[in-house]
Amino acid sequence: MKQLVIIFSFLLLSSISFSAQSQTKPTFTGAKATLKHYKVLYVLNNGEEKRIGAILRNIKNAMEDPRIKGKLEVELIVFGDGVALYNKNSPYMDKLKDLMSKGVLLAQCENTLKERNIDKSTLYDFISYVPSGNGEIIIRQQQGWAVIHP
Amino acid sequence: MKQLVIIFSFLLLSSISFSAQSQTKPTFTGAKATLKHYKVLYVLNNGEEKRIGAILRNIKNAMEDPRIKGKLEVELIVFGDGVALYNKNSPYMDKLKDLMSKGVLLAQCENTLKERNIDKSTLYDFISYVPSGNGEIIIRQQQGWAVIHP
Amino acid sequence: MKQLVIIFSFLLLSSISFSAQSQTKPTFTGAKATLKHYKVLYVLNNGEEKRIGAILRNIKNAMEDPRIKGKLEVELIVFGDGVALYNKNSPYMDKLKDLMSKGVLLAQCENTLKERNIDKSTLYDFISYVPSGNGEIIIRQQQGWAVIHP
Repeated sequence: MKQLVIIFSFLLLSSISFSAQSQTKPTFTGAKATLKHYKVLYVLNNGEEKRIGAILRNIKNAMEDPRIKGKLEVELIVFGDGVALYNKNSPYMDKLKDLMSKGVLLAQCENTLKERNIDKSTLYDFISYVPSGNGEIIIRQQQGWAVIHP
Repeated sequence: MKQLVIIFSFLLLSSISFSAQSQTKPTFTGAKATLKHYKVLYVLNNGEEKRIGAILRNIKNAMEDPRIKGKLEVELIVFGDGVALYNKNSPYMDKLKDLMSKGVLLAQCENTLKERNIDKSTLYDFISYVPSGNGEIIIRQQQGWAVIHP
Repeated sequence: MKQLVIIFSFLLLSSISFSAQSQTKPTFTGAKATLKHYKVLYVLNNGEEKRIGAILRNIKNAMEDPRIKGKLEVELIVFGDGVALYNKNSPYMDKLKDLMSKGVLLAQCENTLKERNIDKSTLYDFISYVPSGNGEIIIRQQQGWAVIHP
């Protein structure tokens, strides 16, 4: 009999605690990061200052997200009007070098240069080149990279 | 002999029907949905009324698509200017509650709040928070979720 | 002894050549395409001439990227304002037929037509229809297709 009382009390307490829990809001705090390694390709094809500032800030924010910090590989692919970011006269040199020092790969689409007759000598000499920005997106996505086009 | 005639007639009819079919346009009616479960993360980082209206409509349309209806899990991640959607003075409360009642997860990036000094008390109290919107996109994509940034 | 000198000279030269190489920039030339087949869904939901021109150019550039040329399957899904591309009075018929002849699948969202009371007879008769553009994106992404929304 004593055992039954104990069991019954336990069940009662459990149900109270359960109902208390179910009255609070669901405590969703974001997707759980269970992989050892994350990879993301950022896409910039816009030359507006606001957009360029936003993507550089986004990259830093993503690298600082506590869920993936220290586990994130980043590439930035630039095409179309976005090429303004890499122009030697752009005000972004320090920010780009900072990203590079953190391992971010800085890539420029060569198709854009052909279409706009832009010479590589007018762009920062520390960037890399890929045949086409769209090809880069397709290959990276199918390699399992996340792609963010802010 | 009679059998041969029948077989021959059958082959002839088949080829006519096949050729008739091949003369019509290819009848592509969209990707086939063969999975039991679909998952999509919608991304909003724009505060314009037109854009907010469009993303809420897009979510409803996706949930009604006969190919994936009843099999679709949806999360909406908001950052940047998109935070306007969750402001307690926004006109979207009914639509948000409707989406929530259908299982849509409503998430807000905490980085945006820090950068803009926005207090959580000014936002609807039924939403959830994640450390960074960009982190959410990266983790979800690598978990196999589709991501739509309209 | 002579052999040792040769070996030593060889090692010395190798190390010089290696050190020369390591002083140059890392020679990243884009993601490596190792799959036999690539698939991409292009998304158009904008009716501006500049945007339409850009997406058609993007598709051609992607198909010409030497890394994936001849291995790329393409679908173009149109919804929202993008429907302007398929209007019989649009100036894009030749470009669309050219893409079709290269195997590109041209698809239109039927939801857009309902929402805007657009009759199919006003659109090019060589296009295909899918229930919803957003459903198409979700299904394709979960089938492993890359998705590009320029």
